[in-house]
Amino acid sequence: MSEFSSLDYKMMSRAINLAKGGIYTTPPNPNVGCVITRDDAIVGEGFHYRAGEPHAEVNALNMAGDKAVGSTVYVTLEPCSHYGRTPPCASALIQARVAKVICAMEDPNPKVEGINMLRDAGIEVQVGLLKSDAEALNPAFIKRMQTGLPFVQLKMAASIDGQTALSNGESKWITSAQARSDVQKYRAQSDAILSTSKTVIEDNASLNVRWSELPETVKSQLAENEVRQPKRVILDRQNLLTSELKLFSTKGPRIIVSQQGDLSPHLAPSGQIDLVPTFADLASNFGINHLWVEAGATLATSLIKQGIVDELVLYLSPKLMGSDGRGLLGALGLQSMQETIELNFRDITQIGPDIRIIAKVENKES
Amino acid sequence: MSEFSSLDYKMMSRAINLAKGGIYTTPPNPNVGCVITRDDAIVGEGFHYRAGEPHAEVNALNMAGDKAVGSTVYVTLEPCSHYGRTPPCASALIQARVAKVICAMEDPNPKVEGINMLRDAGIEVQVGLLKSDAEALNPAFIKRMQTGLPFVQLKMAASIDGQTALSNGESKWITSAQARSDVQKYRAQSDAILSTSKTVIEDNASLNVRWSELPETVKSQLAENEVRQPKRVILDRQNLLTSELKLFSTKGPRIIVSQQGDLSPHLAPSGQIDLVPTFADLASNFGINHLWVEAGATLATSLIKQGIVDELVLYLSPKLMGSDGRGLLGALGLQSMQETIELNFRDITQIGPDIRIIAKVENKES
Repeated sequence: MSEFSSLDYKMMSRAINLAKGGIYTTPPNPNVGCVITRDDAIVGEGFHYRAGEPHAEVNALNMAGDKAVGSTVYVTLEPCSHYGRTPPCASALIQARVAKVICAMEDPNPKVEGINMLRDAGIEVQVGLLKSDAEALNPAFIKRMQTGLPFVQLKMAASIDGQTALSNGESKWITSAQARSDVQKYRAQSDAILSTSKTVIEDNASLNVRWSELPETVKSQLAENEVRQPKRVILDRQNLLTSELKLFSTKGPRIIVSQQGDLSPHLAPSGQIDLVPTFADLASNFGINHLWVEAGATLATSLIKQGIVDELVLYLSPKLMGSDGRGLLGALGLQSMQETIELNFRDITQIGPDIRIIAKVENKES
Repeated sequence: MSEFSSLDYKMMSRAINLAKGGIYTTPPNPNVGCVITRDDAIVGEGFHYRAGEPHAEVNALNMAGDKAVGSTVYVTLEPCSHYGRTPPCASALIQARVAKVICAMEDPNPKVEGINMLRDAGIEVQVGLLKSDAEALNPAFIKRMQTGLPFVQLKMAASIDGQTALSNGESKWITSAQARSDVQKYRAQSDAILSTSKTVIEDNASLNVRWSELPETVKSQLAENEVRQPKRVILDRQNLLTSELKLFSTKGPRIIVSQQGDLSPHLAPSGQIDLVPTFADLASNFGINHLWVEAGATLATSLIKQGIVDELVLYLSPKLMGSDGRGLLGALGLQSMQETIELNFRDITQIGPDIRIIAKVENKES
C-alpha cells in the first residue's frame, strides 16, 4: 500500500500545476506551488510568482487564514528555513499550527533545513510524492544546486539537411516566424541568454525578450509589463563589442565576459575561453541557473565537445540546402561510430511548418 | 445538403480500410476495396489482394450472391471496363443487377470506361465520396497514370546534424534496428527498389525484402510465403556489377540499367544518366508505379536537383557527428534563400530512438 492516498496525489498534482504559473517570473528562484486542505477540502493555495515576493506557502497560508490550524499542506519543494528576502516558510507553517506537510521533494541545497525544522516542531512530514514531476519544474535550479553549473540549453536552427546558412552566409530565414516566436518563449523562461560578440555583431542582435514576438500562449499568462528581461551574457574575449550595437540600447542586464568586462573569463592554455569554469562563475557570481545559448557553430561545437550542454533545442525547417552551406557544428574529428555524441530525443513537436526537437545530450563521464 | 448520406460515408470508409489489406501484395495493381449493401445492411465485401487474382468488386459480389440484386455498391475506384487478367468488373456488376454504384474516384487511366458502362446499363452511379482518402490509397498508381513517371520516394538516413557517415566512411549503424526494419516495410510496399552499382558494391546490398527484418505490424498481416520481392533496379552505366555480388544470389527480379543490361539508359550530354526519361521507361516498360530509392548522396542530389522526387523518407538518429562527416546531399550551389528546395512535412513519427520524417518535395515548375 502506498503511503499516499489518492487525494494526496490529486492535491500535489494541483500544487505542481499551480507552480507553473511562475515559469516566466520566478527566476532565479524555483517554481513552487502549495495547496492546503482541511477535512479533505481545499482551504488555501498559491504559488511563488516572482523572486522577492511571497513564497508559495505564504500565499496559501494567507488564503487559508485560521483554517490553516490542523491542516495538511502539499508543497512541491521543501519549505525554506532561512531569512532571505522573505522570512522562512517553515516558521510560517509552524506558526500557523498546520498538522502535516507533504513535500514532493527535498531542497537540493543541503543548507535548507525546512523539513527538520517542521519535524522538530512536532509537525508530521512526508516526502517524495510526485517527486519526478516536481523535479521537472526546476531542472535548472536543481542542477546548479547539485553541481555548481548552470543548466545549459543550446538552441540551434537548420534546414533538414543540417545547414544553418548558405555558403555566402545568407540565412534569413531558415525557420518560420512561429519557430522564432517559440525561441522568444525559451528566452523568457531563462535566467540568462548567452552568445558571442561575433554573433551579436553579425546580426546586431538584441538578445532580449520582445512582447510582440511572444507566442499567444505566453501572452495569455503574462502581462506586458511583467516581462522579465534575462541577463545577456556575451563572450567577448577579444573586446569586439562597440557601444552603438543594439545590445547596448535595449533594456535588460548585460554581463560582458572579457578581461575588462563584468566577468573575467578563465582561459585555456590555447588562449580560448575555458568554458566550464567560466560557466561555474556565471552560476555562482550571478545566480544563473538556466542558461539559454544562441550562438554560431564554433561556440556550439566547443560546448558540445566539452560536455557542458544539457539539452539541445533544435529547430529543423522543411528545406534542403546542400552540403556546400554551413553546417550545424564544426568538425568533431570522430574516428569511429562509438565516438559520436549521443542524444536522447525528449520531445518532438511541429511548430508551424518546422519541427522542434528537444534532445538530452548524453554526456559521457569525463 | 450533401448528396451522400452518413451511411454512405460509413460504408465507403469501410471499403477504404478494406482496400489497405492489399498494400503489400497488389502492386503493380491499385489497392481497391468494395462493400455491397442491401436494405442498409452489408451483404458483401472484399478487396483486391494480389495482381492476377479477383478484383475487389468480384470478391464482394461472390460474397453477396443473389443478394447483390438491387444492392448499392461502394467501391474505392471506378470499376474496370476491360479484359485484363480478369474480366471487367463493370460487366460483373451489370450482370449481378446491382441498383447503384458509388465510386470514391474515377480511374486516372482515361481508357477505363467503367462508369459509362454502368450508366449505359441503367445503373445509377455517383462519384467523389471520400475521394482524397481513396486517392491516398494509390498515390503511385495515380501518378504514373497521370504523368507516365513513377512515384519516387527517396529514403535517407542521417544523424540529427545531417551526416550520413564519418569522414572515414564508417556509418554502421547511424540508425536503429527499428528504423532499418521500418525501411523493410517500405521496400515491401514498393514496386521497385532503385540504387546505384556503387552503393550495391560498397554495401554488397541485397536490396530485397527480408521476412525476419519486417516489423511485427507487417508480419501480422502477411504470411512469409506471401512476401513479394520488388524489382531491384540498379543504375550501372559503367558496368561495375559483378556476378558474385549478393544482388545476384538473392531472390527477386533485377533490372540492370546499362547499355548491355535490361534497360538502356538515356544519357545527358554530360554522359550522366538522364534520369527523367529513364524513369519514364521504367514506368512504361516494367509497369513500375512506386519506386523506392536507396542510394548515396550523389544520386540523391541529382534526383532532387532534377525535381523527380515526390517524397523524402528521412530517418534522423539521436547523434551528432560534426560537419567533417559526409553530408546527406552534395553541393546544391544555392546563391539565395529563395533557391532552397522546399519541403512540406507530412508525417513525423518516432521509430525506436530515431525520428522518421516524411516530407513532400515541392518541386517548382521547371
